[in-house]
Amino acid sequence: MEKVLRDPIHNHIYIQHQVILDLINAKEFQRLRRIKQLGTTSYTFHGAEHSRFSHSVGVYEITRQICDLFARNYPTKDAHDGLWNDDERIVALCAALLHDLGHGPYSHTFEHIFQTDHEQMTTDIITSPETEVNHVLQKVSPSFPQKVASVIQKTYPNPQVVQMISSQIDADRMDYLLRDSYFTGTNYGNFDLTRILRVMRPYKEGITFDISGMHAVEDYIVSRFQMYQQVYFHPVSRSMEVILSHLLKRAKYLYTKNELQLNGATDLLVPFLTGNYTLNDYINLDDGVLNTCFTVWRSSSDEVLSDLASRFLDRHPLKSVRLAPETKKFVPTLQDLVTQAGYLSEYYMDTNDSYDLPYDAYDPNSQKPRTQIELMQKDQSLVELSAISPLVKSITGKVSGDERLFFPREMLASDKQNDLFSPVYTDFNRYIHNDQVVAPN
Amino acid sequence: MEKVLRDPIHNHIYIQHQVILDLINAKEFQRLRRIKQLGTTSYTFHGAEHSRFSHSVGVYEITRQICDLFARNYPTKDAHDGLWNDDERIVALCAALLHDLGHGPYSHTFEHIFQTDHEQMTTDIITSPETEVNHVLQKVSPSFPQKVASVIQKTYPNPQVVQMISSQIDADRMDYLLRDSYFTGTNYGNFDLTRILRVMRPYKEGITFDISGMHAVEDYIVSRFQMYQQVYFHPVSRSMEVILSHLLKRAKYLYTKNELQLNGATDLLVPFLTGNYTLNDYINLDDGVLNTCFTVWRSSSDEVLSDLASRFLDRHPLKSVRLAPETKKFVPTLQDLVTQAGYLSEYYMDTNDSYDLPYDAYDPNSQKPRTQIELMQKDQSLVELSAISPLVKSITGKVSGDERLFFPREMLASDKQNDLFSPVYTDFNRYIHNDQVVAPN
Amino acid sequence: MEKVLRDPIHNHIYIQHQVILDLINAKEFQRLRRIKQLGTTSYTFHGAEHSRFSHSVGVYEITRQICDLFARNYPTKDAHDGLWNDDERIVALCAALLHDLGHGPYSHTFEHIFQTDHEQMTTDIITSPETEVNHVLQKVSPSFPQKVASVIQKTYPNPQVVQMISSQIDADRMDYLLRDSYFTGTNYGNFDLTRILRVMRPYKEGITFDISGMHAVEDYIVSRFQMYQQVYFHPVSRSMEVILSHLLKRAKYLYTKNELQLNGATDLLVPFLTGNYTLNDYINLDDGVLNTCFTVWRSSSDEVLSDLASRFLDRHPLKSVRLAPETKKFVPTLQDLVTQAGYLSEYYMDTNDSYDLPYDAYDPNSQKPRTQIELMQKDQSLVELSAISPLVKSITGKVSGDERLFFPREMLASDKQNDLFSPVYTDFNRYIHNDQVVAPN
Amino acid sequence: MEKVLRDPIHNHIYIQHQVILDLINAKEFQRLRRIKQLGTTSYTFHGAEHSRFSHSVGVYEITRQICDLFARNYPTKDAHDGLWNDDERIVALCAALLHDLGHGPYSHTFEHIFQTDHEQMTTDIITSPETEVNHVLQKVSPSFPQKVASVIQKTYPNPQVVQMISSQIDADRMDYLLRDSYFTGTNYGNFDLTRILRVMRPYKEGITFDISGMHAVEDYIVSRFQMYQQVYFHPVSRSMEVILSHLLKRAKYLYTKNELQLNGATDLLVPFLTGNYTLNDYINLDDGVLNTCFTVWRSSSDEVLSDLASRFLDRHPLKSVRLAPETKKFVPTLQDLVTQAGYLSEYYMDTNDSYDLPYDAYDPNSQKPRTQIELMQKDQSLVELSAISPLVKSITGKVSGDERLFFPREMLASDKQNDLFSPVYTDFNRYIHNDQVVAPN
Repeated sequence: MEKVLRDPIHNHIYIQHQVILDLINAKEFQRLRRIKQLGTTSYTFHGAEHSRFSHSVGVYEITRQICDLFARNYPTKDAHDGLWNDDERIVALCAALLHDLGHGPYSHTFEHIFQTDHEQMTTDIITSPETEVNHVLQKVSPSFPQKVASVIQKTYPNPQVVQMISSQIDADRMDYLLRDSYFTGTNYGNFDLTRILRVMRPYKEGITFDISGMHAVEDYIVSRFQMYQQVYFHPVSRSMEVILSHLLKRAKYLYTKNELQLNGATDLLVPFLTGNYTLNDYINLDDGVLNTCFTVWRSSSDEVLSDLASRFLDRHPLKSVRLAPETKKFVPTLQDLVTQAGYLSEYYMDTNDSYDLPYDAYDPNSQKPRTQIELMQKDQSLVELSAISPLVKSITGKVSGDERLFFPREMLASDKQNDLFSPVYTDFNRYIHNDQVVAPN
Repeated sequence: MEKVLRDPIHNHIYIQHQVILDLINAKEFQRLRRIKQLGTTSYTFHGAEHSRFSHSVGVYEITRQICDLFARNYPTKDAHDGLWNDDERIVALCAALLHDLGHGPYSHTFEHIFQTDHEQMTTDIITSPETEVNHVLQKVSPSFPQKVASVIQKTYPNPQVVQMISSQIDADRMDYLLRDSYFTGTNYGNFDLTRILRVMRPYKEGITFDISGMHAVEDYIVSRFQMYQQVYFHPVSRSMEVILSHLLKRAKYLYTKNELQLNGATDLLVPFLTGNYTLNDYINLDDGVLNTCFTVWRSSSDEVLSDLASRFLDRHPLKSVRLAPETKKFVPTLQDLVTQAGYLSEYYMDTNDSYDLPYDAYDPNSQKPRTQIELMQKDQSLVELSAISPLVKSITGKVSGDERLFFPREMLASDKQNDLFSPVYTDFNRYIHNDQVVAPN
Repeated sequence: MEKVLRDPIHNHIYIQHQVILDLINAKEFQRLRRIKQLGTTSYTFHGAEHSRFSHSVGVYEITRQICDLFARNYPTKDAHDGLWNDDERIVALCAALLHDLGHGPYSHTFEHIFQTDHEQMTTDIITSPETEVNHVLQKVSPSFPQKVASVIQKTYPNPQVVQMISSQIDADRMDYLLRDSYFTGTNYGNFDLTRILRVMRPYKEGITFDISGMHAVEDYIVSRFQMYQQVYFHPVSRSMEVILSHLLKRAKYLYTKNELQLNGATDLLVPFLTGNYTLNDYINLDDGVLNTCFTVWRSSSDEVLSDLASRFLDRHPLKSVRLAPETKKFVPTLQDLVTQAGYLSEYYMDTNDSYDLPYDAYDPNSQKPRTQIELMQKDQSLVELSAISPLVKSITGKVSGDERLFFPREMLASDKQNDLFSPVYTDFNRYIHNDQVVAPN
Repeated sequence: MEKVLRDPIHNHIYIQHQVILDLINAKEFQRLRRIKQLGTTSYTFHGAEHSRFSHSVGVYEITRQICDLFARNYPTKDAHDGLWNDDERIVALCAALLHDLGHGPYSHTFEHIFQTDHEQMTTDIITSPETEVNHVLQKVSPSFPQKVASVIQKTYPNPQVVQMISSQIDADRMDYLLRDSYFTGTNYGNFDLTRILRVMRPYKEGITFDISGMHAVEDYIVSRFQMYQQVYFHPVSRSMEVILSHLLKRAKYLYTKNELQLNGATDLLVPFLTGNYTLNDYINLDDGVLNTCFTVWRSSSDEVLSDLASRFLDRHPLKSVRLAPETKKFVPTLQDLVTQAGYLSEYYMDTNDSYDLPYDAYDPNSQKPRTQIELMQKDQSLVELSAISPLVKSITGKVSGDERLFFPREMLASDKQNDLFSPVYTDFNRYIHNDQVVAPN
């Protein structure tokens, strides 16, 4: 009999195969409960404390629903009709469930500092014989783990299965938009999932959408664009990431210089500080382990480490303003001023750009060509989305986002008149206008 | 200018006083981000990963809305008219925000094992001159921290302020029902907040409700009852709590016997193992610290500690069945059988009762007399809720919940025929029928 | 290929059989668009303007989902196993869709005045060879219309099919609770549909629920009780019904006396005034036809007819207060006072009781014994709901609702001091206290 | 004490002035309960049966919330500071409530056939001394009705008041997007109302938005665009409008020729057939009156009238396909074919374009220059929305929608092989491909 998990987004997650239940119960999958889906975003939207676990089961559920619809409405009759072969269901479901398995705590920042790679880790956890996940998959067949991994790596031969999990409108993106919207309490990521599922259909080269659903697809693209603008690129979350990055950088520097006290949770982090870690070391990491390190470091005798740890734990973000290509030249000057005000600018100042390509038509010359979204007309011919939607056209192929300069909020304080550094602050403020870096007047 | 926080339950949290903003930014309050509101409940309802931080700002927001309504509709004109004096607003708001400040990780279980007391801790954090929260409150007036603490302790002279925060229908309960409902993805805790707020009114002895809102209040009581039955008392969450409790008990035992390896995060836990801790030690604790200890203990050479740590981290709950007063006598026998099957029953078996009083009319002879809910009629006379609601009457003053027996799921396995312990399992199963302990046939 | 209707409650209504599509397109079914589901309730809750059409397709959709679940999880293997035979699907779906087909405008009141019977009308429309609905059903088989009608009349031999449509927890009640909740904008009727559907199961004598879903079923019963208390029994809607009833009574009286001007829409009403109508006359009626009559009557020279028509169209409800068995004896006196104040009390005063049995266990001695709700335990034994739910027990078998006295709001006016009738008003008010009729002091 | 109406969109509508309560109770306002907000759209989205009454109180409520925010955050201190003068509240609230007062049944189509004008009617009802609305407004001051009317006509001197009710982002549009979204059960019109209200602010020339809310405003514009594409321009609703239009046209033609039977509800329509109507005649009209006429006409001896009435009442839409400028030349040929197939093409064929300008920057040369949306930067300078939003830019100043050709669905029937008219159908189908009119191959 099927089992269900209660889920706020999909109401219920239906588990209909023993292998899925066993994967969920595996140690490496349960670990995803201890890693937040949106990292520092919960510092801006306090509701967004959901984990990668809940997103992963959500991606599974959407994939399951797609399989059901395909099996009901587009079952294959012969090998070359481009319709859905329901024998692919299990590999699709497993890949959907496990696609984020290799994520670590505060993934993006952690990887940047410690040179780890969550995609490689996902593959490793699936294919390494030492993991519980691998054992479960092995029970399906010895080659099954590799098959599942190949779907995630996009090398699996059936493009329908690959595109369910990775394309510009896949189960992954659909779940995270709805889920992040729900937990942040914003409405921007809300789109019409059931309508999209209804117009989705398999064809020889993957997945396409019935032309009658054009506006629903358009709405999804715009929702995605809006979520990036309003939630994922939020300056405060990015500021907390900047602090986190500098904090880890400082710890690494101190460790190299043998000045990091190794008490506390730090033991679990040592393999990454030395660059010499095992798969098991990686699996032992989670948000709580990092935060526990920070709690220990808060009492460190190194002032920079201690201050950055406190700023991160207690949510004291850096201030940020927009930076344009023509104002980047002022950054060194501003860095000087920050240094004059007594901050180690290497740790208290940074620039950060958040860019995303909201949608792109296929471009064989692009660095990372994407599968474009195509709509099927009544006569079975295809038309590319941006060719018929001016709204999508307007954001196609354009990176969108902004570059920002981060610095201590204290630099903008207006009550520094009697401060020793008063002229420094005054000078600094000349470069800031309407939340942007500007040429000083 | 007011600031807002985006919140999935109340849409926006409106912050209109500097003291509130400063309290939210205080280290001790930010720490609540790292403590889950519902502890082990997220093992059953994976969406319920929200923190005590988000609940606390929610309680603040409901209190703010009550103050607004009272100030608009029931402003006091003279000292004895029993109407609302808006000078009480700040103390009410601060008490609402801080009422859960002293909660630690997995509060209930932790307190039980380590003899801490979150209510005392709340008072200590508010009144101790070493905390940031205290400094912020001091700025209002030197006696203000004590005033805020007295509201939380229910000794504050104005009963309206006390009842806003603690009564059978207060801002605390109202927020957690709505919030826990939203994040679990169940609907049971949903009641009509705006209607309840509209019929709420101050009077001399506290807070009452207009008779026209009787059904809305009734609906709230029933919602609360349902949430206890369906969510808070869920056997799987309680099972995970049993494991947690045994895990901490084992660690304490090993520490006493000097057999607990003190590497890793354990340092932060030592003061509690020795029973000798400071306020700062307490503030350093959070869910992540405990989980990090468990990750370390997972590799312990003590098999019980290691196994229980894995069971907790990887969510392998004990099985449970209902236990009735007349079947409690079989527990020792079942304990013997579990021991015979190779388990240390002290760590692998337990009973646990979850009882709650959904509502009670005032009873001066009760151990803990509660403020009853009263409704005001057109002629200003009061009538007690259960006197006019048969639905509420049916659950008034009755504890509700169940007692359960927890044991290793393996005891029920049906595929043990060839097992050495096969007769033990067969015997054990004779005592279990329809998910209850029964007299063996 | 299946067709879908967009629906705010079920998201989509899935139409998978030509007969269902044809029934929806039939004239007699489309007519339900012009009849409000809740009659005068939209005078109290202005959002509740939804039609019987939308409710009917909703009942169909829930029935469809039940069939899907039964076919997936409980397919019959032999004739006597008490499981689901999916050949019953079509008759169940048609009965679900058509169960309210015979409702007329403002059903309850209209029937009372004109002695029509919507249940008989439903049967007639289904079985009469002159209707489009009958023609569509005939295409399935000549005996099919009668079969569908027998499900609605509860004489169909398969109790599972009958109970899907009519029992204490059927598709009809489930849809209207959710739908009326959504459109009124109240929350009281919200219960956990997907959970209930998951625990529903067929057995020999009909439909039962898995014991694990006890609290979900309990929640549904309480929701239903709450909707009756808060929405369906609302005094203002009942007051508008009183006016409507008196208005139709006056028209009938005038017609009998040959004093009703027969201009305007009245032609469509004449067959009912004479008591001599055809099925087609009945099908021609809808809310708009009645309202159009009232618009015409508003200009009538009969003052009572004209005033009541205006009161109904312009929403000027009568005032009402509660009436208890022991205060009924004062009604004649109050009637006298209303008459003295210049009102024809026959048209301006009334009593009305709204009572409902929220739930009942089976009682063979009851006038209308109901199928009770039973829960199936692990060992397949059944237990009746109120036996294990104190909450349900408290409202089982008890009628709930109140009796009210309706009279012109003007009787309570406090500014009548200089009015000719001043002593009458003063006298009247002595009988009214706390919104109830009381013994005068 | 304030009164409230329960509302599904805004939860509660707060009524805080006697004049607002009296206006709602006025006969001309109550009439809006009998006119659907979206006309024929409920034929496509069956949930969309809400009335202009509910929309009108919704527009009032949003305006009330804007006034509250302005009064709290931007109160004027001197006459020329461009801030909010709360003395304007009453006129703003009344204008908001009454802005749609003059709408008749199926407004757009009715006006087109009978040359009425709902904007003029709104003014007339407000300013004519014979209406209840006028009497209520007179009580505020003799010139007040005219003042309210001038806000609706956009001639009122305070641009803030005018723009609250009529601008590209006003209370009217905001309510209908949310409300129509809710009742249709689509999600497209959902935008972040509370965020928009928070960033709205008064300034000298009207209303502007804080730059920090740019994406929320952008989201609103896109939502609006989506609702037009997906809901308001839906081909089936437009097809039902085409039928309605032809039906009224036929009635008018028959009346002119003295061939329309004047029984039934038709009396109420006669003044419009003759073109000689009073304000009271207009106020007597509603959806039910028109539908009652159609029920009567359904039995007319004129076959065209009878058929069109049935098509409208029973929802038998014409089929439609897209028409491009370059394919318009085929319309006469297609008309011929329809005629050959036996239809009076004048009544059974039509083209219809639905175009809307989703947003426009101010263009003094435009026929109907619109107030553009401007955002206020930190230094108080303004920037026009499309200048900073590529998404909005992409739909700015471009009409969007499509032109369609409507014809009897039977023309596309594929089972006409043995039909007398078979060659006609074959020929017709050569012009239709991919739901468009095309050059025949």
